[in-house]
Amino acid sequence: MKIARYLAHGAEHHGVVDGDNVTAIDGSIFDSQIKLTDHTHALSDVKLLSPVVPGKILAMGLNYTSHVGDRPAPEYPMIFHKTPTSVIGPEDSIVRPKEVQRFDAEGEMVVVIKDKCRNVSKDDALNHVLGYTCGNDVSARDWQQKDRRENNSDWWRAKSADTFSPMGPWIETEADPHAQHLRTRVNGTEEQNETTAHLIFDVPTMIEFITRYVTLEAGDCIFTGTPGTTSDMADGAVCEIDISGIGVLRNPVKLES
Amino acid sequence: MKIARYLAHGAEHHGVVDGDNVTAIDGSIFDSQIKLTDHTHALSDVKLLSPVVPGKILAMGLNYTSHVGDRPAPEYPMIFHKTPTSVIGPEDSIVRPKEVQRFDAEGEMVVVIKDKCRNVSKDDALNHVLGYTCGNDVSARDWQQKDRRENNSDWWRAKSADTFSPMGPWIETEADPHAQHLRTRVNGTEEQNETTAHLIFDVPTMIEFITRYVTLEAGDCIFTGTPGTTSDMADGAVCEIDISGIGVLRNPVKLES
Repeated sequence: MKIARYLAHGAEHHGVVDGDNVTAIDGSIFDSQIKLTDHTHALSDVKLLSPVVPGKILAMGLNYTSHVGDRPAPEYPMIFHKTPTSVIGPEDSIVRPKEVQRFDAEGEMVVVIKDKCRNVSKDDALNHVLGYTCGNDVSARDWQQKDRRENNSDWWRAKSADTFSPMGPWIETEADPHAQHLRTRVNGTEEQNETTAHLIFDVPTMIEFITRYVTLEAGDCIFTGTPGTTSDMADGAVCEIDISGIGVLRNPVKLES
Repeated sequence: MKIARYLAHGAEHHGVVDGDNVTAIDGSIFDSQIKLTDHTHALSDVKLLSPVVPGKILAMGLNYTSHVGDRPAPEYPMIFHKTPTSVIGPEDSIVRPKEVQRFDAEGEMVVVIKDKCRNVSKDDALNHVLGYTCGNDVSARDWQQKDRRENNSDWWRAKSADTFSPMGPWIETEADPHAQHLRTRVNGTEEQNETTAHLIFDVPTMIEFITRYVTLEAGDCIFTGTPGTTSDMADGAVCEIDISGIGVLRNPVKLES
């Protein structure tokens, strides 16, 4: 099932996508049974939003061998925060700051948490997942390097400035998180191509590790890490994160005005 | 004016504290005029909660010369995230993880943001502040050092594990943020004693810097940094953050079960 959030006639809804249509639901996307209404729109008539508004986002660094390269691989999950105010939806513009020289797309599979949980075991972890969506862990490399090296700070602006967390187009509830083909295209050129089977720390391992320390809540998101090498998004570029069993998240890039 | 959040007869309210009483308000604490109801309780009859439920928390590192010591002072604000799920209220227990050897209290003044804002100038910054409360930036030093050194990660569990962000007892809307006397006591022994006049980056500077990159929203909080040296909180300890013009935030400490 594909769960989307969207604007139709100025009102916000959650709905279930079927082919080229979306049907509004009655109740919450976290209910044990999703109840459909009889309000159906053509997808072309609605504005898709980020499929959830997360309370918090945790993100994984260096989680594919293809991305680690000649750096040492982390011995345990490497985690950082992304700020919810950085979330945008499909087709929303990613704003490239004027002062940044290197502004990279990081295509990632994103886990959406279904319910409040703490001290979750690996065996039970996927029972706390609502589904998966595509994410772009937009990274201002200048700030990422400078702030850590000179300032010992978090990557708070490097990865969480406004518009730096595009998510969408919807949540796929039936995807196998370890059998997805992830591709990132910038202006149609394929820049990343990897299978989620190659995650160093898989989804149950992340959830077990995180919830040993931090409570996860319904709608919280985990960006699972980016593969391979990453590439710059110039002013006017179009970036697509394409995950085989989920869909395509497409965002234009514009220079800060 | 002192704005608190509290439980009375099982229901959650915001209210205004006057002496030993609190009177519920009608509407939001972010309204331009706070409207009092006729529902007044003795403070001793209610359970105080964290005065806000922040959408996000940004925190300042190394923001007093007395805390910087012989380390290089940051050239620009050093910022990290604290996760909203780590927030607890007055008298709630801070849970000390079993695997941590050094578990420090960091007394701090906390800024509570009044409204959504971006690209705020220093001159305008205090117009976006609702008020100030006391915070404890609880720090698991083992994880703080190990995760950064071995893992290049954020201080996600070191400063944001559950219960690591006590806030309260209320928001004082009329305090001068640069004329407060901040004291931290562990088991009654004074461990920190500093004036907020000595903040390296003052409140308008923080807000200007943060909002150049990140939108702040009503209820978002900024932990402004801790002074002097910090001290360990053992199982059974009681920690008090006492800010002259605001109040005292008191929390017991218990070992993880």
